[in-house]
Amino acid sequence: MAERGIDVLLLSVGADLPYLTGYRAMPLERLTMLVLPGDGPAVLVVPALEAPRVTPRPDAFVLEAWEETEDPVALVAARCGAARRLAVGDTTWAVFLLALQERLPDAAFTPASTVTGELRLRKEAAEVDLLRRAGAAVDRVVARLDGARFSGKTERQLAAEVAAMVVEEGHEASAFSIVASGPNGASPHHESGDRVISPGDAVVLDFGGRLQGYHSDITRTFFVGDPPPRFREVFAAVQAAQEAGVAAAGPGVPAQEVDRAARGVIAAAGFGPFFMHRTGHGIGLEEHEAPYIVEGNTALLEPGVAFSVEPGIYLPGEFGVRIEDCLVVTGEGAERFNRAPRDIHFAV
Amino acid sequence: MAERGIDVLLLSVGADLPYLTGYRAMPLERLTMLVLPGDGPAVLVVPALEAPRVTPRPDAFVLEAWEETEDPVALVAARCGAARRLAVGDTTWAVFLLALQERLPDAAFTPASTVTGELRLRKEAAEVDLLRRAGAAVDRVVARLDGARFSGKTERQLAAEVAAMVVEEGHEASAFSIVASGPNGASPHHESGDRVISPGDAVVLDFGGRLQGYHSDITRTFFVGDPPPRFREVFAAVQAAQEAGVAAAGPGVPAQEVDRAARGVIAAAGFGPFFMHRTGHGIGLEEHEAPYIVEGNTALLEPGVAFSVEPGIYLPGEFGVRIEDCLVVTGEGAERFNRAPRDIHFAV
Repeated sequence: MAERGIDVLLLSVGADLPYLTGYRAMPLERLTMLVLPGDGPAVLVVPALEAPRVTPRPDAFVLEAWEETEDPVALVAARCGAARRLAVGDTTWAVFLLALQERLPDAAFTPASTVTGELRLRKEAAEVDLLRRAGAAVDRVVARLDGARFSGKTERQLAAEVAAMVVEEGHEASAFSIVASGPNGASPHHESGDRVISPGDAVVLDFGGRLQGYHSDITRTFFVGDPPPRFREVFAAVQAAQEAGVAAAGPGVPAQEVDRAARGVIAAAGFGPFFMHRTGHGIGLEEHEAPYIVEGNTALLEPGVAFSVEPGIYLPGEFGVRIEDCLVVTGEGAERFNRAPRDIHFAV
Repeated sequence: MAERGIDVLLLSVGADLPYLTGYRAMPLERLTMLVLPGDGPAVLVVPALEAPRVTPRPDAFVLEAWEETEDPVALVAARCGAARRLAVGDTTWAVFLLALQERLPDAAFTPASTVTGELRLRKEAAEVDLLRRAGAAVDRVVARLDGARFSGKTERQLAAEVAAMVVEEGHEASAFSIVASGPNGASPHHESGDRVISPGDAVVLDFGGRLQGYHSDITRTFFVGDPPPRFREVFAAVQAAQEAGVAAAGPGVPAQEVDRAARGVIAAAGFGPFFMHRTGHGIGLEEHEAPYIVEGNTALLEPGVAFSVEPGIYLPGEFGVRIEDCLVVTGEGAERFNRAPRDIHFAV
């Protein structure tokens, strides 16, 4: 904080608070905010009715519970005192930031990631272990889906089944499950809907969960029945791109080089315009966090940095293919968290 | 907007955007933001890879899709032009608000609820109908739980079963399910955990889901086996308080009077200090929204205003009891969305 010129860190909903304290704020309208000065004890301002939930690492802060008729923003502002350089959690609600700015008109606010970003970027051994266990759990879900019946189910039904398996295999919760079938596969962030899956469909399955706060995230592309040559051609390009992206990952490599490696393979196969998203995102306490694996990110990868490599090709009106593993950079290269086969998966 | 002195409304994650357009932004790091000027067409700045998801009411705005290497904040700022009075969605991420403030140093920002709050407060007939249907769906879940086996299950297992039933009974998704057993019931926002439910436990079940964007929210308190007199005494106080709160709801009544009516019953029974939360919250596109049923809220209720009435008594180290219905204010009084019996429910 001193290096970054920050007097007080103000953390609310989002991952910085559990990263530092083990406690995750409820994403509701009652403000929870950790007031963490550079030079004194931290105070967690928390709604009185949520105070009994605050069990992990109580030594990390003093509790200041506010009653229903109190103004928590006033409590936070009072705790900030004369501090003038405040860093506020990136995902804090705007309505609370505006109220703080009104109460502290002389303070300058900056995003908390200025301080927390670098800390969270390099995973410690215990964090890597949780990511590894979460990755193995989604691998087991893929194994259970191999050869399963997709035909006749709606995307929504299959998504619910996948979400349940994510929990059964050892996550505390499902974080998301995308089932994008047939032409819907061409929408990378498709919302699983009422489309009924049928033989002849390609189905992109992208899902993950949370294990002791840390996330898994895997994508495999299934085919219901016997895939035509065009699907096989597209699939082969994505598979080669994903391998190239993973092979490029290692210490000292600029993040954008992983993107370039994967993108180059798809461009060479003639599908460049149909891979319209970045190659990956960091993973940890958030499903998506730094570093982003995207052109323009010249930050050098380091041991302990964990992220996804997930190129795809999306053909509007036809289908989509995406393959995703998460990995962590090691001293020599990278260790994948996902080992489920990266070939075409089949369903009936 | 003219009445409130707002030039441009900026809406991102949260309920205002779907309220006005039918589209819900993904709560991820890529900015989605509707730029809605008081005097011109609206523009939705959206990540290119999410553009295919934007299907509802495309006539509501023009799409401006941004590519992975573009800066969406710059696009939003450019669309704001010379506007100086900007209202930003209450749950927008602080990191985006800070970036907008840096780009538009002469603009004054205010929370969007200044404009949208009153619009969303009074539900239209179609909205009330969805809330009614969602309420009936959670009533059916309660009926399925009556007499069910709780003993031997962990809170987490039961919570997962309840969440699945919420979907089976007609919601598109479960929003939350709190299972607070035995002494855990004394924590109003308890996170369902590994505690195994046993005979002799009181169990607070508080759950809800989303149906076409609108929420249900119900609480019933179960007992595993035959409840002792102390539980029956506490239960009776909560039941009478909940009836009193609902009876107080009607057009022209200050919101705080509903709180006072419920709280008075619990205080008279001698449990005042053990009811430490407000009596209720508005419900609609958000699980919790205005109006808050709390001392100090003197706003008058009106037909179409929907909220929960959910008093409780929480005895640390012993158990908790809460009973919750949602309702809508009508021309004469209030219509409950929940009709599941409000007596003690039993499990084995």
